[in-house]
Amino acid sequence: MAEETSNGNVVLIGKKPVMNYVLACLTFFNSGAKKVTVKARGRAISRAVDTVELLRRAFVKDVELQNISIGTEQVERAEGQKSNVSTIEITLAKP
Amino acid sequence: MAEETSNGNVVLIGKKPVMNYVLACLTFFNSGAKKVTVKARGRAISRAVDTVELLRRAFVKDVELQNISIGTEQVERAEGQKSNVSTIEITLAKP
Repeated sequence: MAEETSNGNVVLIGKKPVMNYVLACLTFFNSGAKKVTVKARGRAISRAVDTVELLRRAFVKDVELQNISIGTEQVERAEGQKSNVSTIEITLAKP
Repeated sequence: MAEETSNGNVVLIGKKPVMNYVLACLTFFNSGAKKVTVKARGRAISRAVDTVELLRRAFVKDVELQNISIGTEQVERAEGQKSNVSTIEITLAKP
């Protein structure tokens, strides 16, 4: 983990169209990044997978799936209740 | 891949509540399975991650995330158009 954090190339997936996030990844790679981490929580997880797959299929064919990890984060809601949300982190590397 | 296919313990994630799929995994493990594969496509991908996380957190604490892989499948729509859909496969193992 420390590697990606110090590297700092993180694309956080939200509710925008998939292509926006593909472009964000492309921008990192085109500016010389060797590693980009795609992160998402909850329902955005499927969009994170879409982003990585579209990038690999259509844009950067030599990109390598270095690691995929899943986890859980606790989120505090407005009413003070805690709920759990699933997370995904996909690390992409260019040779 | 051949390993899981011959093993055959696959839970395919659809639109039902997450707990249904958690129970399906539990049933496999409780009937002696050493390995269970959770598969999903498209929007169900986030539910697949929810299933695995809930299972690990609340039910089978010693379960091991053996592998996570993502991919793309071509789906033919009613009108004959082809579209791509992302897929995920999460393999769980019990020591």
